[in-house]
Amino acid sequence: MMAQKNTCPIGVFDSGLGGLTVARSIATALPHESVYYFGDTKRCPYGTRGENEVRSFALQAGRWLSCHNVKIIVIACNTATAAALRVCQQTLDVPVIGVIVPGARAAINSTRTREVGVLATNLTTRSGAYTRAIQDLDAGVDVYGCPASSFVEIVEQELATGAHLQERWLEDEDIFDTPEVRAVVRQVVTPLKGHNIDTVVLGCTHFPLLVGPIRHELGPGIRVVSSAEETTRELVDILQRREQLAPEDALPQHRFATTSDNLAEFAAAGSFIFGQPLKSIEHVSLEELV
Amino acid sequence: MMAQKNTCPIGVFDSGLGGLTVARSIATALPHESVYYFGDTKRCPYGTRGENEVRSFALQAGRWLSCHNVKIIVIACNTATAAALRVCQQTLDVPVIGVIVPGARAAINSTRTREVGVLATNLTTRSGAYTRAIQDLDAGVDVYGCPASSFVEIVEQELATGAHLQERWLEDEDIFDTPEVRAVVRQVVTPLKGHNIDTVVLGCTHFPLLVGPIRHELGPGIRVVSSAEETTRELVDILQRREQLAPEDALPQHRFATTSDNLAEFAAAGSFIFGQPLKSIEHVSLEELV
Repeated sequence: MMAQKNTCPIGVFDSGLGGLTVARSIATALPHESVYYFGDTKRCPYGTRGENEVRSFALQAGRWLSCHNVKIIVIACNTATAAALRVCQQTLDVPVIGVIVPGARAAINSTRTREVGVLATNLTTRSGAYTRAIQDLDAGVDVYGCPASSFVEIVEQELATGAHLQERWLEDEDIFDTPEVRAVVRQVVTPLKGHNIDTVVLGCTHFPLLVGPIRHELGPGIRVVSSAEETTRELVDILQRREQLAPEDALPQHRFATTSDNLAEFAAAGSFIFGQPLKSIEHVSLEELV
Repeated sequence: MMAQKNTCPIGVFDSGLGGLTVARSIATALPHESVYYFGDTKRCPYGTRGENEVRSFALQAGRWLSCHNVKIIVIACNTATAAALRVCQQTLDVPVIGVIVPGARAAINSTRTREVGVLATNLTTRSGAYTRAIQDLDAGVDVYGCPASSFVEIVEQELATGAHLQERWLEDEDIFDTPEVRAVVRQVVTPLKGHNIDTVVLGCTHFPLLVGPIRHELGPGIRVVSSAEETTRELVDILQRREQLAPEDALPQHRFATTSDNLAEFAAAGSFIFGQPLKSIEHVSLEELV
């Protein structure tokens, strides 16, 4: 039996800030665990790049985290999961999980009508990764992909306001639930309304930030499943089964690394998404990545 | 939103008696749920038949259960899951789950060494179904299949003693944990010992009956994952998420159907495996199956 590595941090990476919704969900569900977050902000977004390039970037992020003594790595990005989960699992000497299968499984386990909608970026939707993951687990479920890249733009535009974010997350205000955002969401989710869908997956790590307007526009008859939260549930099951949870007297020490040259901007937007101040942020130059 | 079907039974089927380990696990974890069990004993075992034949038999069993108002169907047989899960999911108007993916997922979530053993019948081992299921979920885990059809023979021979079983399960005696059985198990599991395996899946629904000698021969450093128990965990998650659990004041009414012509034998061996007397057993002729 291998030595336990209970107090090592949980590695989380994303192309930028979106994966902080996953990190936040992990920190909330596992209050004794430390998160080591890597955001490849300088090369964000991955969604407009080719698959080989995303795979190579994801491997670099995974190698960087695995050199920093993490006990497990979570790819907190749907694009990177689709392109690089398998190769990261095969290559890295640390176990790796992604966000797609947990979201797919939760959708199957939730649906009664056996019709599921998936909100994701246009690229993830086109890739068919969710449809495959869902139908691999239950071939009797119909999947309706709904491209929603404009949701990412809404979030990024709002986050770019930077300076005001810190006051606003302290007020616990849902800055995204405005009439304008609801109108965009309403238009985007319209194609999901013509079916017998009772469950919708948020298949992009930015989208939990828009869960207010998304729930409102989908209406009360539709359950919303967040791949961020479901990945956290899977992580809890893994650490429990492997007896690798941090001890209950451990104080979490979250650390954040980014390729961004603007640490102030990363700190402001990151603290807003993570729901608490990012106390330890380090800059990683692209030259340090192998 | 569809009408809730809370009080409908959970359908479970197997080629014969082995699936009663799954039914028992369900009845224990969900004490308010009723199980409707179908055992195709007359055509047992499925393991020596062709894939097309198994698929056709499994569809007949699934159709029979879906005509008896079950809210979900569990294929409690690894051979039938491998051969017929997808077609059952695509064809039947009731949701269907199998035993392989829950066992595979539990093994991945349990292993630290990333080396997993799978004990299954020779046929299931040759089919590679577990290896595929495990590596689809984590491409970094090595899988060592270990053919163990002789375990089925041990169980069936012991169960064939029939008349004495009822007294013995009432005594809660582990009738399978004998020096002779331990010797057989020791020999079968030897190939698993040359690796760095820390987790072994019981990939046949007969095998939980041998968990005593299996644990003993594998030793304390190896976790044993039962596909029966893991399938029950998945079922609990599904019924909770779909809000389809029976109400807490419901009294379970388990029913058992079999194609066997010898209901007394089915009752004796079945009560032993199920852990309580089978109170309602009906005979189903092959002509009734469509």
